[in-house]
Amino acid sequence: MGVYELLMNRKSVRNFDGRPIADDVIARLVEVANRAPTGGNIQPWSFLLVQDARARADLAAIVGNQPWVKRAPLSIIFCLDFLRLKRWAELSDAKFLGELSLSHFLIGYADIMCAAQNVVVLAEDLGLGSVYIGTVQSTADEVRARFEIPTYVFPAMLLSVGYPKSTPVAAPKLAAAAVVHYEIYRTLPDAALVRAYDAKYPAVEANAANYLERTFFEAAEADAQEKAGWQDRARAEMRRLGVKTNAQFLFGVRYPAEWMVEMNGALLDTFLNAGFDCFRARAGGEPESESG
Amino acid sequence: MGVYELLMNRKSVRNFDGRPIADDVIARLVEVANRAPTGGNIQPWSFLLVQDARARADLAAIVGNQPWVKRAPLSIIFCLDFLRLKRWAELSDAKFLGELSLSHFLIGYADIMCAAQNVVVLAEDLGLGSVYIGTVQSTADEVRARFEIPTYVFPAMLLSVGYPKSTPVAAPKLAAAAVVHYEIYRTLPDAALVRAYDAKYPAVEANAANYLERTFFEAAEADAQEKAGWQDRARAEMRRLGVKTNAQFLFGVRYPAEWMVEMNGALLDTFLNAGFDCFRARAGGEPESESG
Repeated sequence: MGVYELLMNRKSVRNFDGRPIADDVIARLVEVANRAPTGGNIQPWSFLLVQDARARADLAAIVGNQPWVKRAPLSIIFCLDFLRLKRWAELSDAKFLGELSLSHFLIGYADIMCAAQNVVVLAEDLGLGSVYIGTVQSTADEVRARFEIPTYVFPAMLLSVGYPKSTPVAAPKLAAAAVVHYEIYRTLPDAALVRAYDAKYPAVEANAANYLERTFFEAAEADAQEKAGWQDRARAEMRRLGVKTNAQFLFGVRYPAEWMVEMNGALLDTFLNAGFDCFRARAGGEPESESG
Repeated sequence: MGVYELLMNRKSVRNFDGRPIADDVIARLVEVANRAPTGGNIQPWSFLLVQDARARADLAAIVGNQPWVKRAPLSIIFCLDFLRLKRWAELSDAKFLGELSLSHFLIGYADIMCAAQNVVVLAEDLGLGSVYIGTVQSTADEVRARFEIPTYVFPAMLLSVGYPKSTPVAAPKLAAAAVVHYEIYRTLPDAALVRAYDAKYPAVEANAANYLERTFFEAAEADAQEKAGWQDRARAEMRRLGVKTNAQFLFGVRYPAEWMVEMNGALLDTFLNAGFDCFRARAGGEPESESG
């Protein structure tokens, strides 16, 4: 299988068998992470490997009771690490203020994701599966405390890796034609937009259970792995809220629109707690209003 | 060559020959971008392909006179696209407020980078080279105007792609041992930290030109491609500032520490101009101070 097929066939894996990953395989995953593109070759990252059974259980609980994090033999916490750079600068008679710079944050976070995606790709090539866990960001206070992550280091992404027990259901995707633009951005007319999303998602059916099983496959996988009844709760919540469209499910149940905005305060606090104060203009940084 | 070797050997390419990229190859690059992992399968992205010679010249000028952007037959502007999602939600009797949500921004930006890195990997496999251009963020006002990118769409990353004219010099890297942690984060002792960076960077030499040529290879490549004398200016600036260490070069000349912080205001304005107001706590979003 070529690289094209590899990338096209990748699906997030949440159903891991118990098989451990050999040390030399893990070493290779770390090496390709460390070789990822990085702005200015700064490598503002640390890779925290979690393999201990108890640590895995703790991590799974912290990031929102995600059973696949516990079952995966390896989870990698991709940290944005400005501490090492600050200390290196200090020891080199220089100064690094990445923790106060939105630009350093954005480029550093992009670097982290290049590193993480390199791991995803190599893992896939080696017969492993993986799943990103974004909730490591909003639970960073607890993650930092549990894994002794110091100030100026932020757990920016989590990836759980293991051998797949089953082949995941392919997630439906928008056609590439709906997301590509040539030379200038052209807004999709409503009719084309509706066609694109109707083609991506199956039609909403009267039978909510069937709908959930077909579309929100990870819920089904979660149900199979634990008896917490995620699916039943989601189904009841859908009925209560009168969910009738896919967008209503996504932005009403899964990522409730107002709640996603209300999270800002807590999330900003979490960054501040980690020493990252990079999301506001600062004295001296007021815009000269040169830009439109 | 296997995927491991592919990822280990990748280097940023800035020296492109003039060869165009076939349409079917470009189509494949877009397809793997569109198949990247994405939180909640939301696909909050648009890929704007720039191939027209005049558009390439304009783009190169806007992002800071980077000649490789002009020479590359293809540049892809990876846009964080909340406009399409907002309209889809609206047409589905739902509401999407991603432009106000820091969490949606962070996960969406991670998605964008997964897509971009998929392109980097497939490009490498197909004999192409690529280079990320992060300055598309700070110049987003101009990029959006030139490429008619509407409100709620942010040009989050730029990747220039083409056939390499020469094999780039391998960038020195920290050893993986310096960035990996097992089970808990452990801070590198100063001596180990200094050893790690001394191993990464060649010793600073009295001969600044030699130093620049060996370490900051892209400057040399830029000089070869245009007569703007980047290298001469950098050398003069190094002398003026008395740069003696690698960290002093990086955080004094290339990314001046205070200036990187002062940029926050203009960068936040640029996001606001694009309709992204996601970097502050909002009414109702004040933390309940549950977290440390």
